[in-house]
Amino acid sequence: MKTTTREVTAECLCIGDELLIGQTINTNAAWMGEAVGLSGFRPVRTRVVGDDEADILDALGTARADVVLVTGGLGPTKDDITKRCLCRFFGTRLVRHPEVEAHIVELFERRGLEPRHVKEADLRQALLPESCIPMPNAVGTASGMWFEREGRVYVSMPGVPYEMQAILRDHVLPRLRERFSPPSIVHRTIRTAGIGETPLSERIAAWEEGLAADGIRLAYLPSPGQVKLRLSRYANADPVAAKAAVDRQAQALYGLIPGLIYGEGGQELEEVIGIRLKAAGQTLAVAESCTGGHVSHLITSVPGSSAYFLGGVVSYANEVKRKELDVPEALLREHGAVSRPVAERMAEGVRAALGSDWGLSTTGVAGPDGGTPETPVGLVWMAVAGPRGTVAAQSLFAGTRSLVIQRATVTALDLLRRSL
Amino acid sequence: MKTTTREVTAECLCIGDELLIGQTINTNAAWMGEAVGLSGFRPVRTRVVGDDEADILDALGTARADVVLVTGGLGPTKDDITKRCLCRFFGTRLVRHPEVEAHIVELFERRGLEPRHVKEADLRQALLPESCIPMPNAVGTASGMWFEREGRVYVSMPGVPYEMQAILRDHVLPRLRERFSPPSIVHRTIRTAGIGETPLSERIAAWEEGLAADGIRLAYLPSPGQVKLRLSRYANADPVAAKAAVDRQAQALYGLIPGLIYGEGGQELEEVIGIRLKAAGQTLAVAESCTGGHVSHLITSVPGSSAYFLGGVVSYANEVKRKELDVPEALLREHGAVSRPVAERMAEGVRAALGSDWGLSTTGVAGPDGGTPETPVGLVWMAVAGPRGTVAAQSLFAGTRSLVIQRATVTALDLLRRSL
Repeated sequence: MKTTTREVTAECLCIGDELLIGQTINTNAAWMGEAVGLSGFRPVRTRVVGDDEADILDALGTARADVVLVTGGLGPTKDDITKRCLCRFFGTRLVRHPEVEAHIVELFERRGLEPRHVKEADLRQALLPESCIPMPNAVGTASGMWFEREGRVYVSMPGVPYEMQAILRDHVLPRLRERFSPPSIVHRTIRTAGIGETPLSERIAAWEEGLAADGIRLAYLPSPGQVKLRLSRYANADPVAAKAAVDRQAQALYGLIPGLIYGEGGQELEEVIGIRLKAAGQTLAVAESCTGGHVSHLITSVPGSSAYFLGGVVSYANEVKRKELDVPEALLREHGAVSRPVAERMAEGVRAALGSDWGLSTTGVAGPDGGTPETPVGLVWMAVAGPRGTVAAQSLFAGTRSLVIQRATVTALDLLRRSL
Repeated sequence: MKTTTREVTAECLCIGDELLIGQTINTNAAWMGEAVGLSGFRPVRTRVVGDDEADILDALGTARADVVLVTGGLGPTKDDITKRCLCRFFGTRLVRHPEVEAHIVELFERRGLEPRHVKEADLRQALLPESCIPMPNAVGTASGMWFEREGRVYVSMPGVPYEMQAILRDHVLPRLRERFSPPSIVHRTIRTAGIGETPLSERIAAWEEGLAADGIRLAYLPSPGQVKLRLSRYANADPVAAKAAVDRQAQALYGLIPGLIYGEGGQELEEVIGIRLKAAGQTLAVAESCTGGHVSHLITSVPGSSAYFLGGVVSYANEVKRKELDVPEALLREHGAVSRPVAERMAEGVRAALGSDWGLSTTGVAGPDGGTPETPVGLVWMAVAGPRGTVAAQSLFAGTRSLVIQRATVTALDLLRRSL
């Protein structure tokens, strides 16, 4: 593959009334934007139009990026008019593509259906514009289609997310890289928790300033309770040197904020916790008040979590804190349910009751009501009880009830992670 | 307000590199599309561009709908260039709007900050294009802005979803309806659970065919475990008759599938359950295995749920089922953890342990591993124990671990709803 420094642009054209009227959130555009960006293309625009021939033709005709990724409108129902529009736009006609038909029949056979059960509507999916190059769809009947015109590449794909993703990842992106030789990019994503975007940016300001000299760009990717830092650098001339430069700066970042970094890449906090518990042969139990089950939900969203997660108690009522977690009534009366001593006793109580190595607790005011001057909405106490004793921490979270719950959940998981 | 039959179109222009590179999923476009659609406007297009002056100006200049809703790029940081672009596009300049400045100071006071702590960057938010009409932002410092040019209305709003929503709902939509008098629409959304989209469409096929004669359109809005049915009808000539026609068909639907309907409009299943429990003065406790805390999480996502939700036990390990929920070891050995008797005992056990009126339980195989021929991945038993005894049900859910958990959660909540 040749390398070049010319910027190669990409845009998305998403077709479907369901996107316009808000029935479906356009996750495809985000997925495609990230995928092409990580492959060295620059996403410059996304457009969404309805199932309307004039609008689709207009959008195709006003494309201006090097790569135009089209999704949607390829199903066998009558609403789906993308193929008709493509034929008009490229001045071609629908013809039967035998290799696509064979794939459709095979797909049905794999699902245990005999060829005679394949319906005419399904076989119609093998009718594609004559001038296109089919892009195989391993997980569905709607083929992707590659067109070229005046130096521009148009790729039409189905709107079903996992079908689009499989076609783009396995067939379109490799071919696009071959065709355009975009600048290749080295990137590394470092995940932090327990600090907001602004204080984090202040803490690493000097380091961040030094990145430019190495040709490295930095992106802050915040979500409730955490911030991901993505380092990226063009790697054309010398990929090995580019990777070394990124790794060196990542290393420097680890030296700067060691405690705040919990993982890299696509790894979630709850996965990191699972890996550590599994490695140590230890178990976890959770006692939740204000987070109401969300901590347990994230922990158990990880496949195989039953190996280290024994269970939890959602102690919404004080009576449950007393009975199930052995929190003394006097403690609740004296300090209130949202307090350090109660958080500590909850963590110790669930650890003792379930016989786990670690106990994690949360107690706070998620809002919107229930706040007082002493315990305002957003105040959350968290505690971890473990083999070396109990630690507690408090935070005051801003935002809606849902955001307070999400932020408290991530912050509690991070408190546990630091203790392991 | 006059009424008209002229179609009034709307388009969205969303600004932000984070949308293009897939860092943020564009939920704003979906929300705005639904909101304007329900208000009688026809959403025709969405465009997303990056934080680039030329691209923003080009997009503003090529707008073609009657209403152009612009979001993003209004923060106080240097990336946010929307206001500069608006000034250039409308040939105006930034001036201090005293009423917006007063609002910003008041917002900080409400958060307990004195006026002297309001930073210059915050006050810069009171600088708005001279020719705009400010649209108040009750929940943030970035004001909305209304412009008109050549019969077209442009409204610029912040990209923070809850700020955009508050401005659009409370100020922009009323003013747009006043300005354009779009065809008014009567709509009613009926929420069902416990049946998939295809079997539901088969069950109500005859009813659905009769809608056209009444001028009513039907949309299926599926999400894991539930399907919403939206009936809508233009109401220009005779709003009273239009509403009556929609209500009559809704009534017919209630007669057809009474047990499957749990609510209407924006009401979630967990809210309906909360309302019923509150009205009956009854309490709930939850015992979760495969749903791992997600049922408790949804129940406690409802503000005020502490009035009826006592708490729950996440009994991932069998030992926890025995100790905390009093499930006999013999039962687990004989029937396995994923079985009717164990689900029943879990619901009864948590009801007894926490002293609630109702107990709800789940036990199943969320996958991707852990399935056997007898208890395959996706098999979930659910039970409800209450004043009139215990009922149980099983389902076999398709999809990923995350989907199985979501579907099981909704189906368990629906089993409880039917029992109340």
